Amino acid sequence: MSTTNISDDQSKREEELVHAVIASFEKTSNPRLREVMQKLVQHLHNFVRDVRLGESEWGSMIDFLTAVGHMTDERRQEFILLSDVLGISMQTVAVNNEASGSATEATVFGPFFVKNAPPIKIGGDITGGAPGQLCWVEGTVRDTQGNPIGGARIEVWEADDDGLYDVQYADGRVAGRAHLYADPKGKYSFWGLTPTPYPIPHDGPVGMLLEATGRSPMRAAHLHFMVTALHKRKLITHIFVAGDDLLISDSVFGVKESLIKHFDIQRGDTPTPDGRDVGGLPWSRTRFDIVLAPA
Amino acid sequence: MSTTNISDDQSKREEELVHAVIASFEKTSNPRLREVMQKLVQHLHNFVRDVRLGESEWGSMIDFLTAVGHMTDERRQEFILLSDVLGISMQTVAVNNEASGSATEATVFGPFFVKNAPPIKIGGDITGGAPGQLCWVEGTVRDTQGNPIGGARIEVWEADDDGLYDVQYADGRVAGRAHLYADPKGKYSFWGLTPTPYPIPHDGPVGMLLEATGRSPMRAAHLHFMVTALHKRKLITHIFVAGDDLLISDSVFGVKESLIKHFDIQRGDTPTPDGRDVGGLPWSRTRFDIVLAPA
Ligand SMILES: [Cu+2]
Ligand SMILES: [Fe+3]
Ligand SMILES: [Fe+3]
Repeated sequence: MSTTNISDDQSKREEELVHAVIASFEKTSNPRLREVMQKLVQHLHNFVRDVRLGESEWGSMIDFLTAVGHMTDERRQEFILLSDVLGISMQTVAVNNEASGSATEATVFGPFFVKNAPPIKIGGDITGGAPGQLCWVEGTVRDTQGNPIGGARIEVWEADDDGLYDVQYADGRVAGRAHLYADPKGKYSFWGLTPTPYPIPHDGPVGMLLEATGRSPMRAAHLHFMVTALHKRKLITHIFVAGDDLLISDSVFGVKESLIKHFDIQRGDTPTPDGRDVGGLPWSRTRFDIVLAPA
Repeated sequence: MSTTNISDDQSKREEELVHAVIASFEKTSNPRLREVMQKLVQHLHNFVRDVRLGESEWGSMIDFLTAVGHMTDERRQEFILLSDVLGISMQTVAVNNEASGSATEATVFGPFFVKNAPPIKIGGDITGGAPGQLCWVEGTVRDTQGNPIGGARIEVWEADDDGLYDVQYADGRVAGRAHLYADPKGKYSFWGLTPTPYPIPHDGPVGMLLEATGRSPMRAAHLHFMVTALHKRKLITHIFVAGDDLLISDSVFGVKESLIKHFDIQRGDTPTPDGRDVGGLPWSRTRFDIVLAPA
């Protein structure tokens, strides 16, 4: 904290106030709620003191939160967007998925997962006819000792070539999502689409904040994974496309060096791994070897 | 911060994320907005890391803010209430009204001030017929050198005996508020009501938070003042009633030792300062000498 240039008297007043607010939560019966509230108070007060928050600035923050509240409804969660663009969502993911040897890193879940996505066999197709460049994805699922995890459940989902998920269309389509199971050697593969970038919703107060701070609403291109197996920590992550200009400015800070993969573009006449006829169009391929931490 | 028991790898991941988010605001054209956002990010991330915020706890916070947003409308500002009960409003007041010699301390403004309250003469009556025990208030307005500030403008407002401000009634009444000017010697006096406690609105999410944390929504009894004079810092404050049980648990942390005043109860047959006939009912009197800081 840099509450510099303030008198001892003033500093004492401010500190006494922080202590009084913290003390007011002392009778909270749930000890975890007490801890969270007391620490929240400490850090929020540190913020106010550190920036010497002006009264009109405080008013602007109240107005901003009010606008975020009014933007939020059954279909739009502007508070989550706010948490995302402040990196709070990603920090929560980091805190809850601690580094564990070679375990694959987690990243943000995002709002577009849907339960009960269609099942596919290994080597199957998740695109559901969504527009885009075909992409062969393959890899293995292992534990941190290197043992294959046969039968690991893999959920995958992604946006189409227009940057839209199936649920963003009004026609009820199911496309660009599926689930499959790794084989006894932990191997999996499927046909998806080469990921393309898309913006987070930016027609609300969070979009205005991005605008005012010179930031882009674009997410780096990615493909979502959720991988589960018995006695293993659930992994929610993405893979990103090496060379994507947006890797350094992903609007929700989801990118991790270890999750950036080469997507190698193939000429239309290159034979496909499973003999699929791609109609002479270019396609791509990538490899994502997954390591699950112990639960 | 106490992000204890985490590995160096983990700690490095979390810190890199904080730095990435801070860096994302580097292109903000308004330097003050940049500073505020970067510090906000720093302190919010410190909070998440410090408490090791669980993913379901993060979800509860999103739900809570969503409920606060939905409670807020033209007449009810639940975000300000939240700021109030976390002491953030009072800390903002503290930061913006730095200790200045003998200057009277400021406290929260509250939502019940109304512009253009009726004028009264010195010694006049602000009650407007509101129910309650009459109270004679007198004092002086001076600068920090002890010079009287003749003509200082004094706004006063308070709740009635039922703990309600005039604006909380549907009948358009104007009562319990007025403005007057100090005389050339800086003296002022008026008839008001002995202050009584009242709760902040607690039928919404903020009330639920108070309930869950074993806190009361009650404010200590108080009388609001706003005092302005040329070349002086505007003073927004309250006076509180010595002996009030609620002084130690004021729900918005507005109480300052220096603002607690004796309200001396007088028998109904005690002569009043200005000869007013109080109908044989007990009344009270208090003194509040005001010192304005330089602007
Ligand atoms: Cu902090
Ligand atoms: Fe996504
Ligand atoms: Fe009040």
